[in-house]
Amino acid sequence: MPTPPETPPRKRGRPRHLEPSAEYRERLEDIVTVAAEVFRKQGYDAGSLDDVAAALGLRKASLYYYVKRKTDLLRLIFDRAITTALVDVERLAAIPDAHDRLVALIRHQALLVLADPHHFAVYFDQRTGLEAEDLADIARKERRYVHHFITAVTDAMDAGILPDGDPRMVAHSIIGLTSWSYKWFDPARDSAERFADTCVALVVRDKRSRRRIRPAG
Amino acid sequence: MPTPPETPPRKRGRPRHLEPSAEYRERLEDIVTVAAEVFRKQGYDAGSLDDVAAALGLRKASLYYYVKRKTDLLRLIFDRAITTALVDVERLAAIPDAHDRLVALIRHQALLVLADPHHFAVYFDQRTGLEAEDLADIARKERRYVHHFITAVTDAMDAGILPDGDPRMVAHSIIGLTSWSYKWFDPARDSAERFADTCVALVVRDKRSRRRIRPAG
Repeated sequence: MPTPPETPPRKRGRPRHLEPSAEYRERLEDIVTVAAEVFRKQGYDAGSLDDVAAALGLRKASLYYYVKRKTDLLRLIFDRAITTALVDVERLAAIPDAHDRLVALIRHQALLVLADPHHFAVYFDQRTGLEAEDLADIARKERRYVHHFITAVTDAMDAGILPDGDPRMVAHSIIGLTSWSYKWFDPARDSAERFADTCVALVVRDKRSRRRIRPAG
Repeated sequence: MPTPPETPPRKRGRPRHLEPSAEYRERLEDIVTVAAEVFRKQGYDAGSLDDVAAALGLRKASLYYYVKRKTDLLRLIFDRAITTALVDVERLAAIPDAHDRLVALIRHQALLVLADPHHFAVYFDQRTGLEAEDLADIARKERRYVHHFITAVTDAMDAGILPDGDPRMVAHSIIGLTSWSYKWFDPARDSAERFADTCVALVVRDKRSRRRIRPAG
């Protein structure tokens, strides 16, 4: 690691008592991004810290300054995905109108996955490599995440803009509809915005046409 | 391998010029089923032929009679999934009515994945382990598979029972909606039949209500 000459020599790694610098955090973000690409391509078990270092153009000793074990990289990949997404979903969950909230959540999920399909391919497909404690933490955050979808789906059913059904089942179905894109989406021919619109059009019913089908009295 | 005493000694493995016996094929099916469970749980790279043999209660030498390399097992897992599913979908593709055909394809896909979620978890998530030639063969079959969904979606749009959109995008979206279940479905609380009904209700529009929305002239 290049170190300014006036800095006294210190142990490898970031001192625990200091906040990480902006530069450190930015570098770590790059490492997590590239690690997700390596694990997507090779699989988590087959991809090594050496492969990640090589893809970054770093020596392994330099990578080691940021992460000590491959499983730390996997935890960071999962953490980034669910933490950012949960903040967004909690913001959208505050939208009062049932129609606007459901549409916002569907569009959010569709665009989220397509903004970084490699990252989400690792997130969705490679969790066997996570340590038990990390997996429990991710599962906890995912339950909060899905909870917001279930609430939105329940309200949308009450408003007559989704067909009736088991809200938990419908919430997971909508997450599947909007998340599966990392398996087939081709940016050369498909548009992310159009995909988000398609997902909304496929499941969300028009309020007025539903009202006409169920006349009052 | 137990061999009747009157059989002359021969090389390991099934002779190439003979059709496999019913017993051989049945045993191989069991091996493929158990291998998918092992790979689902441990990941393909981490799971070994030893693990598969142990899960079957076989010695590795006995497993070797059926498969020589781990990648053969993976190919067999993929082959079973897509070959059976493709036969079913080609049968359903012959249904003349657009509504009945779309409903049949949606229900087929929803029930297919839930009939063996471990198997499809490997199929959907662990293809990095496939050899290039096998992957090309699977991809060819998948294109035929998706083609039937695209045709059904196009006809359903013409019939006014699906909102208009890019048929390829909508076909993949419907496959995502119906396939994602292996990630969340809990047989202790969810019913596969109810899930299939939910998928149909979520996307397929009622013919008559659509006609009323678009009056002639």
